[in-house]
Amino acid sequence: MNYKAVRNLIGKILMIVGALMILPLFVALIENEGWQNYLAFLVPIAALEICGLLLRIKTNKSTNFQAKEAFVIVGLSWLLMTLFGALPFVISGDIPNFVDAIFETASGFTTTGASILTDIEATTKSALFWRSFTNWIGGMGVLVFVLAIIPESKQGAAVFLLKAESPGPQVNKLVSKMRFSARILYLIYIGLTILEFIFLLFGKMEIFEAITLSFSTAGTGGFSILNTSVASANAFCQYVIAIFMIIFGINFSLFYFILIGRSKEFFKSEELRVYLGIVFFSTIIIILNTLPLYHNFESNFRTAFFQVSSIITTTGFTTYNYELWPSFSRAILFFLMLIGACAGSTAGGLKISRIIILVKSSANSLSRAVNPRKVKQIKFENKALPNETVNAVLAYFVIYMGIIFIVGLIVSLDGYDLLTNFSASVACISNVGPGFKLVGPSGNYAIFGTLSKLSLSLEMILGRLELFPILILFNPKTWINGRW
Amino acid sequence: MNYKAVRNLIGKILMIVGALMILPLFVALIENEGWQNYLAFLVPIAALEICGLLLRIKTNKSTNFQAKEAFVIVGLSWLLMTLFGALPFVISGDIPNFVDAIFETASGFTTTGASILTDIEATTKSALFWRSFTNWIGGMGVLVFVLAIIPESKQGAAVFLLKAESPGPQVNKLVSKMRFSARILYLIYIGLTILEFIFLLFGKMEIFEAITLSFSTAGTGGFSILNTSVASANAFCQYVIAIFMIIFGINFSLFYFILIGRSKEFFKSEELRVYLGIVFFSTIIIILNTLPLYHNFESNFRTAFFQVSSIITTTGFTTYNYELWPSFSRAILFFLMLIGACAGSTAGGLKISRIIILVKSSANSLSRAVNPRKVKQIKFENKALPNETVNAVLAYFVIYMGIIFIVGLIVSLDGYDLLTNFSASVACISNVGPGFKLVGPSGNYAIFGTLSKLSLSLEMILGRLELFPILILFNPKTWINGRW
Repeated sequence: MNYKAVRNLIGKILMIVGALMILPLFVALIENEGWQNYLAFLVPIAALEICGLLLRIKTNKSTNFQAKEAFVIVGLSWLLMTLFGALPFVISGDIPNFVDAIFETASGFTTTGASILTDIEATTKSALFWRSFTNWIGGMGVLVFVLAIIPESKQGAAVFLLKAESPGPQVNKLVSKMRFSARILYLIYIGLTILEFIFLLFGKMEIFEAITLSFSTAGTGGFSILNTSVASANAFCQYVIAIFMIIFGINFSLFYFILIGRSKEFFKSEELRVYLGIVFFSTIIIILNTLPLYHNFESNFRTAFFQVSSIITTTGFTTYNYELWPSFSRAILFFLMLIGACAGSTAGGLKISRIIILVKSSANSLSRAVNPRKVKQIKFENKALPNETVNAVLAYFVIYMGIIFIVGLIVSLDGYDLLTNFSASVACISNVGPGFKLVGPSGNYAIFGTLSKLSLSLEMILGRLELFPILILFNPKTWINGRW
Repeated sequence: MNYKAVRNLIGKILMIVGALMILPLFVALIENEGWQNYLAFLVPIAALEICGLLLRIKTNKSTNFQAKEAFVIVGLSWLLMTLFGALPFVISGDIPNFVDAIFETASGFTTTGASILTDIEATTKSALFWRSFTNWIGGMGVLVFVLAIIPESKQGAAVFLLKAESPGPQVNKLVSKMRFSARILYLIYIGLTILEFIFLLFGKMEIFEAITLSFSTAGTGGFSILNTSVASANAFCQYVIAIFMIIFGINFSLFYFILIGRSKEFFKSEELRVYLGIVFFSTIIIILNTLPLYHNFESNFRTAFFQVSSIITTTGFTTYNYELWPSFSRAILFFLMLIGACAGSTAGGLKISRIIILVKSSANSLSRAVNPRKVKQIKFENKALPNETVNAVLAYFVIYMGIIFIVGLIVSLDGYDLLTNFSASVACISNVGPGFKLVGPSGNYAIFGTLSKLSLSLEMILGRLELFPILILFNPKTWINGRW
C-alpha cells in the first residue's frame, strides 16, 4: 500500500470539499441567517482544511499506485466526506441527531435523495442549499473533480481512480473515455446544469428553487426544497425536469460525440437505444394501466412520463404518490429502480449496459445447454466482450442482490413490513430515494432505528461507488500486504 | 430433431402415468366412492394409454438423440402429464374448473404444494390420494422412472435425459451419479418413503394420513389432506416429518455412499455441510427472534425447526402461521425459499451448490478487481470448476431472477399487493407452495385470475425442471433445424 499517495489524495479531496462549502456559507450570509448558521459552515471548513493539510504532511505528488490504492482512496474519501458533510446540519441545528445527519449527507453525496426530514420547508436556506449541492457534487464525483483540476501530464495512475469512482462495467468503449479528460466531463456537466436552470427560470420558477432543483436533477439525486417534492411546480417545469433527468441518465461520453460533431455515433449507441426504449414502453404501459385514475390525458401522460423518468434515472422526484397506482404499474417502477439508467451517467442502479450483458449472457447459456460445443461470443456496442467482462457483470449482479438481501434483513430488525424493508434496501443501493409503503413518496426514512440508518447509509455509498471500493476497503486482505 | 425418439419416449411416459393412476383408482374402489369417481380415473387412464400407443406408432427404440431432443422430451412430457393429471379432479367434480385443476396438478407434480382448494377436507379420498401421489411421482421425476425400468444396456443417450430432468448444476461430481443407475435412486427413494411411513404409524398417525404425508414429504411437495397442513399432528410426528424433510433435501448420490459403506464421503460433502449449517443457524436465529411469542421452549424450538426445514427443502408444510412472526424471521424464510436445499435431491429452489458457487465466484471477482493478473480457479467439493460451469450457474441465477420478476409482473395485473404477487412468484418457481400475505400459510392461490394461475403453473414447471427444458421447448430455434 502506497500510504503517501493515499494520504496525499484524500487530503486534497477533503480540502476541496471544504472549499465547496464556501458556497452554502455565502447563502447563509446573503440570507442573514445569523452566527449559528455561519459557524455551521465555518467550523467544518476549518476542520476539513486542517485535516487535509495534516494528511498531506510529508507526502509527495507520487501517483505511483495501483488499483488497490485507488479503491481505498475512493472508498475512504467518500466515507470521510459523508462524516464532514454532516457537520453543517448538526451545528446549524437543522438535523441535531448526528446519525440522521450522516444519513442525509450520505443520501446527498450518493445522489439517493432519501430523507429523514419530516418537514423540509422548516429547514434553513443554507442547509437546503448544501443538501441539494451535495447531490450535484456527488453526481459527477469528487475524484473526477480532482482529476479535472490536476494537470493532464501528472495524471499517472489516474485511470485507476476514474475506474474506481465512475459507474458502469469496464467495457472497452467506456474505458476509452479517459482519452478525453475528466475536465470535459465536468464542463458538459456544468453546461447542462446551467441550461436546465435557464429553462426553469423561463418556466417562471423562483431562483432559489430553480438552482437547487437543477443541482438535484443534474446529480440525479432527488432532493427538493419542498415537502411535496416537485408536485407544486407548473406543467412546463415538470416537463423540463423530466427531460433533463433523462438527459442526465445518458452516458456522458456520448455527449462528447455531439460536442465534436459526431452525432451519428450518439444515436448508434446500443445502450442509449435500449434506455430510451425502456423509458418509452414503460411510460406507455403505465399510461394505459393508470388511465382510469385521471380526468385528462395530459396529466395522465405527464405523471407517467415524469415518474418513469425520475425512477429509471434513480433521481426520485415525485409529482404524484405512485403508491396510489395499480400494483402492475408499481411493479414496473420497482423493476426500473433496480435497472437504473446508462453507465457513465450520474444515475444509479445496475445500469442498462449491465442489463443488456446479463440478458445476452443468459441467452448464450441457453444455446450452450443445447449445443455445448458451439462457442458464441457476446457482443455489446458492436464489439465482442471478453469473457472476464461478462463474468464480472454476472458476479456484480449476484453481489448486488446479496447486499440488497443483507441490508433488507438488517432493516427488518426494526419490525416494519417486508415491502418497506426490501424496497428501502433497493431504493438505497440503487440511489433512488423513495421506495414503497412506509418509505414511499408520502413516507420517510425517519421511522428507522440507528442500525438501519447506518446500514442504509453505507448501502447508498456501496451503490454509488459500484460496490468494490467499499468492499475492498472493509476487506482485511487490503491491509495485509500481498494477500490479494 | 429425432421425432421418432421423441414420440416413442413421450408415449412411454404417458402410458406410465396412466398405469400409476391405477393406485388412486384402487383407493376410490376401497372407499366405495361410486361411479363418478371410478370414471375420474378410468377415463384418463384410457386416454393416456391410447394416446401413448398412438404416439408410439412406427417408432423404434432408437436412443440416438442429443441434448435438444432430451430437453424437448422432458419439457413436453411434463406439460402433457399436467394436462392429463388434471382430468381426475375435473371429472370427479372435486375441482370442476379445468384451469384450477391444471394449477393443482402442476403444483402436485412439481412438488410445489400451492393449492387453490379452500376446503381440502371436503375433497374425496381418491382425489386427495392422487394429489399427494403426484407430489411423490414428481419428486424423483418420471423420466428417471423411465430410465429405472429401461435395461441399462439400452440407455444410450439417456444421460441427456437425466441431465435434463434432474436438479442441480452440471458439476463433475453430480454427473458421475449416472454411473450408479437411476434404479438405485428410485430404490433409495422408495425405501426412505416407507421408513417415514413406519415412523408416522409408530407416532399413532392414521394410515391414510401417514401414507399421503409420506408421499408429500418424500417429494418435498407439501400437499396435506387437512386444511391446517400438519398443525394438528402430534409433536412426535412433527419431528419425524421435519427430520425426513431435511433428509429428502440431501443429494441422493450421497445416500449411495452410505449404502456402499463409505459414510466418510457422506460427511465430507461441502454442499451437505453448508446445507446443515444454514438449517442450524436459521433455526437458532428464528428461535431467538420469536422467543416472546411462545410459552414453552419446546414448542418454540419445534415450530422454528419445522418451519425452517419445511421452507429450505421447499416442501411448504406449516405447523404455525409464520406470518405472525416478526419481519426479521419472515425475511429469513423468504431467503430460504430462494436458496432451497441440495442439488440432486427432490427439493426446489436455486440449490445450495449453486449458492456456494455464486458466493465463491463473487469473492473471486473482488480479487480480480484488485489484481486482474492473478487468475484463481473456483473449487467446489475439492475439485476445480471449469469456467463454463461457473458461467452457467451465474446465468442460471440471472434467468431465475428474471422469471420471478416477469411472472410477478403478470400476477400483478390481478391487482393484489406486491408482496403477495412476488412471494407467490418466488414460492412457485422454487416449488415451495406458501408465500406471504394473501398466499401465506392462511391464504390460498384461489384468489388469482386465469392468466395468473396459468403463468404460475408454467413457472412451477420451469422451476422443477430447472428452466432449460421449458425455455428450449418454447424457443422457435428448437423447431427450425440447425439454428441453435
